[in-house]
Amino acid sequence: MYPLAEGLFAAENCWYVAAWSNEITRAPMERWFLDRPVVLYRDAKGSPVALSGHCPHRHFPLARGIVEGDNIRCGYHGQTFAPDGTCVSVPGQKTVPAACHINRYPVAERWQWVWIWMGDPELADASLIPDHMLLGLGDPQSEMVCGIHHLVRCRYMALHDNLADLTHLSFLHQSSIGSDDIGSAEEVRHRGADWIGSHRTLKRQPCPPFFGDMLGYDGRVDRAFGLTLICPSLHVGYDRFDRTAAPGAPDTERHLATFRIYHAITPATRNTTHYFFASGRDFALGNADFSAALRQAGQAVLAEDIIAVEALEQMVAALPAEPQDYHVQTDTTALFARRIFEDFIRHDRAAAPHRQSATRDGLVQLFADPSRDRAELPEPTTSLP
Amino acid sequence: MYPLAEGLFAAENCWYVAAWSNEITRAPMERWFLDRPVVLYRDAKGSPVALSGHCPHRHFPLARGIVEGDNIRCGYHGQTFAPDGTCVSVPGQKTVPAACHINRYPVAERWQWVWIWMGDPELADASLIPDHMLLGLGDPQSEMVCGIHHLVRCRYMALHDNLADLTHLSFLHQSSIGSDDIGSAEEVRHRGADWIGSHRTLKRQPCPPFFGDMLGYDGRVDRAFGLTLICPSLHVGYDRFDRTAAPGAPDTERHLATFRIYHAITPATRNTTHYFFASGRDFALGNADFSAALRQAGQAVLAEDIIAVEALEQMVAALPAEPQDYHVQTDTTALFARRIFEDFIRHDRAAAPHRQSATRDGLVQLFADPSRDRAELPEPTTSLP
Amino acid sequence: MYPLAEGLFAAENCWYVAAWSNEITRAPMERWFLDRPVVLYRDAKGSPVALSGHCPHRHFPLARGIVEGDNIRCGYHGQTFAPDGTCVSVPGQKTVPAACHINRYPVAERWQWVWIWMGDPELADASLIPDHMLLGLGDPQSEMVCGIHHLVRCRYMALHDNLADLTHLSFLHQSSIGSDDIGSAEEVRHRGADWIGSHRTLKRQPCPPFFGDMLGYDGRVDRAFGLTLICPSLHVGYDRFDRTAAPGAPDTERHLATFRIYHAITPATRNTTHYFFASGRDFALGNADFSAALRQAGQAVLAEDIIAVEALEQMVAALPAEPQDYHVQTDTTALFARRIFEDFIRHDRAAAPHRQSATRDGLVQLFADPSRDRAELPEPTTSLP
Repeated sequence: MYPLAEGLFAAENCWYVAAWSNEITRAPMERWFLDRPVVLYRDAKGSPVALSGHCPHRHFPLARGIVEGDNIRCGYHGQTFAPDGTCVSVPGQKTVPAACHINRYPVAERWQWVWIWMGDPELADASLIPDHMLLGLGDPQSEMVCGIHHLVRCRYMALHDNLADLTHLSFLHQSSIGSDDIGSAEEVRHRGADWIGSHRTLKRQPCPPFFGDMLGYDGRVDRAFGLTLICPSLHVGYDRFDRTAAPGAPDTERHLATFRIYHAITPATRNTTHYFFASGRDFALGNADFSAALRQAGQAVLAEDIIAVEALEQMVAALPAEPQDYHVQTDTTALFARRIFEDFIRHDRAAAPHRQSATRDGLVQLFADPSRDRAELPEPTTSLP
Repeated sequence: MYPLAEGLFAAENCWYVAAWSNEITRAPMERWFLDRPVVLYRDAKGSPVALSGHCPHRHFPLARGIVEGDNIRCGYHGQTFAPDGTCVSVPGQKTVPAACHINRYPVAERWQWVWIWMGDPELADASLIPDHMLLGLGDPQSEMVCGIHHLVRCRYMALHDNLADLTHLSFLHQSSIGSDDIGSAEEVRHRGADWIGSHRTLKRQPCPPFFGDMLGYDGRVDRAFGLTLICPSLHVGYDRFDRTAAPGAPDTERHLATFRIYHAITPATRNTTHYFFASGRDFALGNADFSAALRQAGQAVLAEDIIAVEALEQMVAALPAEPQDYHVQTDTTALFARRIFEDFIRHDRAAAPHRQSATRDGLVQLFADPSRDRAELPEPTTSLP
Repeated sequence: MYPLAEGLFAAENCWYVAAWSNEITRAPMERWFLDRPVVLYRDAKGSPVALSGHCPHRHFPLARGIVEGDNIRCGYHGQTFAPDGTCVSVPGQKTVPAACHINRYPVAERWQWVWIWMGDPELADASLIPDHMLLGLGDPQSEMVCGIHHLVRCRYMALHDNLADLTHLSFLHQSSIGSDDIGSAEEVRHRGADWIGSHRTLKRQPCPPFFGDMLGYDGRVDRAFGLTLICPSLHVGYDRFDRTAAPGAPDTERHLATFRIYHAITPATRNTTHYFFASGRDFALGNADFSAALRQAGQAVLAEDIIAVEALEQMVAALPAEPQDYHVQTDTTALFARRIFEDFIRHDRAAAPHRQSATRDGLVQLFADPSRDRAELPEPTTSLP
């Protein structure tokens, strides 16, 4: 399926963000992942539960049922299911055949996210989930804006493609977070079997008004920013602003701000995608008004992306044939990412879990201090092998 | 087509309710039945006419034309058709070739319903229509609420499945006509080649508030209720409430109320269905205010069903593959009904009318006095042969 | 594709009206033609440009980009294209591979219309466009109502069929421009390989109120009207009203009004069509209020057509199988037109331009003075060869 090879949709044996923690309550909620309906709720102790979203009896949406203790009861004929997918009660009969059960999907709550594993539950290993503390999630020194979720009407790869090529900042986000010079900045890449990071540095540039207004600064800045995609579901990034040093001036007190950026992307159906977004910052800590303003500004930028990828989806869906991309040099990151996605999906057939976090340690160190780690990592690759 | 065997949609050589009598007027109306468009109107003498809904010339909807005398004239180029489907006038030419005609569909007006036969018109036999007087329709001792019609966005079998398994009363209608105990009541079935009835009795139960409020009674009741499906289009039922007799008290003056219930279900397209509903009662005769309140209450209950079957349809249509049902013991009635539907559809190929009313006499006696007739009928079958 | 032979959609190597001149500006606009997206804008000198509507890089709609000088820059990653379809700039790299280009579609501005050629650009020959001056477009003696455009939700052939059979005036437009007698008037046809004209004359008829009100006349009229279809995209016509001469009275000063009528029809997608309409008149010259009233009245008549063809499309699309037409005598013009369309489409495979204007001279003379030219043209054909 475009833009992946024909017949490939999405990897199953891996973790995706299913919801913000506060979205899952005792009231069951239906959400689709990887083209399958899932019902999400919390058991009596508050642990999240994910089960197939339709009752096996007559396929009524279980999210229209009610939660009783740890179980969920169908709102149509009352069949009741336990968190492991076992049917525990069928009105009108005393025994329940063992064959009556539904898929349960392993979930794991980390920080403010609930992750879900849509593949073989026997392969689910919560240690494969990226370490949130190392990613800076839950860091008390990072003031967060959280809770943003959109169901975007596009195939999920359009959102990955969007983030893997940040030259779009100069055009799509020209009037907000972008500036004219993104495309001309050298792109530095690092990568592993299941991740790829892209970094850029701009020196002595005018501070984009979006940030200048926020920081109360209108001079020149040195800016470093990048995103690392931990396939198949999470982009983590940073955007650092320092005052450009005056010639001969001491290189101190130049720091203005560093933002941390988190995009979690989960296929819903073939043409819709869950998009979870959060950001952190190292200034204005504890300032709720600033957070509210930042949330609003962030939503406006996300709206630019969402309008674009939905327009893209409409175009691709309306074209009489699957489109062919014409690749340019700035596509290297996106093309490498697509290969990882294709590898993941093909790997599903081997019924083994993905190496989703194999090189995570290096990755998050990179994230935690990009200036230091970039030097220690292997030379960036600027063309595909 | 789910839930029937692959390739089976709906039986043709049989009668379906097309409309309430007062819906068909001199102004032509389009309605789809069995995935085909039909135009309905009344001729000069007031008899209902049903013709193919599109002009054979350029397929303009005939319901956008006008009725002239007994005929209907296309609103596009003026071709005119008689009630037997013959084209009687083509503007611009003096003669009309005999080959220019459209399908006419036999109709029969009974009580407040107009029935239609979508199959081979040569096989249409109005005596096959269930006898409305025997069903209690038109009975002056039964105060009716009539005229309810919904075009439901689901396949028609979802509505039959819904009615064939009344355990849904305890869950879907828990806050209205249901109570917790339906599933535990023994289900008694009677059936013939083209019908199946299901009956339940509850003793010494609290009266559901829906009925208690209506009857001004809050004590314990003995309740008997059931529905008989006359395949492929009509469910007739009753719901009887009697005061529970005090121990040792005489068994007199216990009767509170008996409702009669009528659901006519007609396939419109593959995923939409006409749903006609009426009810009768043996109390508050002639009380129009009570009828209005009952109509409103009944519509609220129907809304619960419609929301459910439309949610079901959306789920089934969205699933990547046709679903497989997991059957439980309370499905016996529904599964037997499905077999009759499949038999009917396959029987269409033999170009013979269905035995739609073969055992009607027994059936309606059953309906007329369920307490008496149940004893006289053969033993109920609780498993499929 | 109904109503053409299976697999035939629309001719490509020919000219279609793409837009009114004033619709195309420096702000890019997306419009679909022949099931393909096109972006339309004006270059720095004001000439119209038509290019493939999606960027070849990631298929973002180019109409969401911006025009810079003569070029258009994609709003997503900044690829820039010249009016000939060449990519002239890719952010992030210094050279642009020659292979990076998009389709350009030849356009030609004539009168207030911009015409487009969706086929092989090497075959585009602007001299094939019907001569607008000869058609009366731009004639200072003809007061025009222009600028009407509708995107109609029907296949384009439904609009051609509609215009090729003017007997619909008596029924669809009975209360506006029609009268009861259209079907009984003899139809006279003239035709060539790529055009067909249909003419009718009515004598001593009551003036339809639509025109009588406009002309301030309520006597009897002699009316002559007709439409000529220049395949595959333009209908030009006239509607002439003269006072019926009193018996023995001199045949002078009888002229009331002649209207000229222009319908340009362009396939958008398989089920949507661009519809451009204009009219001219030989009275009330320079009267803007009269023009405004005429525009409003014309839109009301067009609305009758559009509602009809959209109802037709819905019917045809909903029928379980492609419909079969039953043809009558008044269909001769429409059937001949369908054959020309099919010939054109099949001719596309020969990669040669259509003889779209081969007999145009005779055609427009016919239009310019129908009473004179009809006599000079070959005898009308009333049946298909």
